[in-house]
Amino acid sequence: MEQKKHRSSILERKKEVLESLAGLGASIYDQLDTGRFPAIDMPSRSTENITYDKQLRQFILGDRRVRRSSRNVRHLKPFTQLTWAAFFSNELASQRKTSTLRDVYYSAQAYEMTFQDQQESNNIITDLETVLGLSREDFNIFPEERSAVFGDLTIEYTVPGYEGKTLNLDSHPDGVLIGPALTSSEFVKTTADKVIAIEKGGLFTRFIEENVHRKHNAMLVLTAGQAPRATRHFIKRLSSELKLPVYIFTDGDPWGMHIAMVIISGSANAAHLRELTTPDAKWSGVWATDIVNYKLPTDPLDEMDMKRLNELQRDPRYVDPLWRREIKTFMKIRRKAEQEAFSRYGLTYIVDEYLPAKLEETK
Amino acid sequence: MEQKKHRSSILERKKEVLESLAGLGASIYDQLDTGRFPAIDMPSRSTENITYDKQLRQFILGDRRVRRSSRNVRHLKPFTQLTWAAFFSNELASQRKTSTLRDVYYSAQAYEMTFQDQQESNNIITDLETVLGLSREDFNIFPEERSAVFGDLTIEYTVPGYEGKTLNLDSHPDGVLIGPALTSSEFVKTTADKVIAIEKGGLFTRFIEENVHRKHNAMLVLTAGQAPRATRHFIKRLSSELKLPVYIFTDGDPWGMHIAMVIISGSANAAHLRELTTPDAKWSGVWATDIVNYKLPTDPLDEMDMKRLNELQRDPRYVDPLWRREIKTFMKIRRKAEQEAFSRYGLTYIVDEYLPAKLEETK
Repeated sequence: MEQKKHRSSILERKKEVLESLAGLGASIYDQLDTGRFPAIDMPSRSTENITYDKQLRQFILGDRRVRRSSRNVRHLKPFTQLTWAAFFSNELASQRKTSTLRDVYYSAQAYEMTFQDQQESNNIITDLETVLGLSREDFNIFPEERSAVFGDLTIEYTVPGYEGKTLNLDSHPDGVLIGPALTSSEFVKTTADKVIAIEKGGLFTRFIEENVHRKHNAMLVLTAGQAPRATRHFIKRLSSELKLPVYIFTDGDPWGMHIAMVIISGSANAAHLRELTTPDAKWSGVWATDIVNYKLPTDPLDEMDMKRLNELQRDPRYVDPLWRREIKTFMKIRRKAEQEAFSRYGLTYIVDEYLPAKLEETK
Repeated sequence: MEQKKHRSSILERKKEVLESLAGLGASIYDQLDTGRFPAIDMPSRSTENITYDKQLRQFILGDRRVRRSSRNVRHLKPFTQLTWAAFFSNELASQRKTSTLRDVYYSAQAYEMTFQDQQESNNIITDLETVLGLSREDFNIFPEERSAVFGDLTIEYTVPGYEGKTLNLDSHPDGVLIGPALTSSEFVKTTADKVIAIEKGGLFTRFIEENVHRKHNAMLVLTAGQAPRATRHFIKRLSSELKLPVYIFTDGDPWGMHIAMVIISGSANAAHLRELTTPDAKWSGVWATDIVNYKLPTDPLDEMDMKRLNELQRDPRYVDPLWRREIKTFMKIRRKAEQEAFSRYGLTYIVDEYLPAKLEETK
């Protein structure tokens, strides 16, 4: 791995974040100093301004921009809220404290900054992301949910109290949580040559027990259902900093398929961000065609499943032939299968037979 | 801590489990050898046989017993399934592989042992627990969900590949997962003098960042909502082996209250087990009376919340004056508050003011 390039990339990023926030503050003061009503410009996040970019393989924002001006009485409230969010984010980032969206909502009350509900404060944080082109994790606002990782990667912490300390992520064979400390750590060294992301806790444990990390030189990531943003960002870092290919294993149903897709191409409401997608990651299974080929035990697709498949069929992210074929096959067989269904051939079949075959097939 | 007493308790327990399973097998062979139809006896788990024991402060099974006999054609299927479950558990425990309830259901198909659905195979595993007086975690059948822990406790692993290796649970400041490896580890040494269990991921991280583990010599456990069984068992071990008092912090609503209660007194469907309850653990907050005293931002209790409160009021676990007072107060104020609501007084108020006050109050 290219050690030089990304060492201290984290600390540089932190510096950039603080500079961006300071820049936003300075621009407001400048406008005030020159006798103007301060305003903040940003790309519009309305649906008409969101398009799917085939090159980037993710949603992006178009050229439409919006302006929040303190001159406009209808803008005054969101303008003030946005300014407060920048102030609060600066507090978090400079004091190196982390927070959640829920915390932000309640913290506002400490400043007599009222939000009608959490949806309103969440939107303002997304506005701030859009203004600065940074993600809320940069401002130390982390998801409530935590997923996990296991494998041979030595990290070096940058969080207070742990600066310079290292940990190998294979130290605890149940896995360690992906939280603020891991997210802000530097990658020091690894022998891994791939990443395997797994939807379910039981299977994550099975992979560790069966030494998948050694046999396949793999970092194992537990997404625990839909991967939280911090986990998608971590997978992206493994892919971009360490140049590791990423393989995703989910249940064989429309929901599992979409867990993989969100890791690969992100979501429309993060169209203003680039650090949450891993376009070259592969969905390695369980495919609808695997259900057929491996004669897996199945359950019928219910009405919700079929509705979801119809939505995915119209989704611009699902254009590649592989995805279209799998959606069609699901619709034809009208059955779904869980990852655990492979246990019908014995507990280790999924590791001994299925996994190597699929890693080869989706290479 | 009493190091001698519980060192190698894990390996002894594993030996006992295998002996119990062998004993069950031997009794079936004995019956066959003496020309009898084999049968298995166990306490009845029907609701009439479940009572709340005020001394133990948990549900227990009464004296009624049931018999599964291969002589009775209606019993033949569950008798065979139960024998298979014992066989499969023996495979898991002796080969030191772990599994989930979902895996057990699918694995049965590898042996042409059919279960109608997962509910049926889950019931059979509970039967096996009841027959042997052991929990399914003893047979290496673990929950799919994983929660986490952080703090100064050195553990020694007993899982294959990690035997004899140690880890201090303060090594990773996001926390480490509570899975099969942690559950089966020996406790080596700790400076902690209490356990603080926390419902939510965001607050768990805040407590770590604000050094609650050092300031209060505490092991911090993230329950991530309702604590999975492996986590309840881990908390019980911290309480019984290390003699640490346990304090539980949840949201201030009927669901949070019940998260605490299940850690303390368990559930009716685990009435046949003793290792999942920590009767001396304290629910330290957020109480309904805290909502009033701390003037917390609230949401109204909805219909579901009120229905749940009515159920809890009739629940034999909720007899102590504290619980009755809090249920009454919830019903009176008809409001609920989340743990994050304390952020209205600043991000660290909950750690600096609320936590010490409540630890003192519930000591």
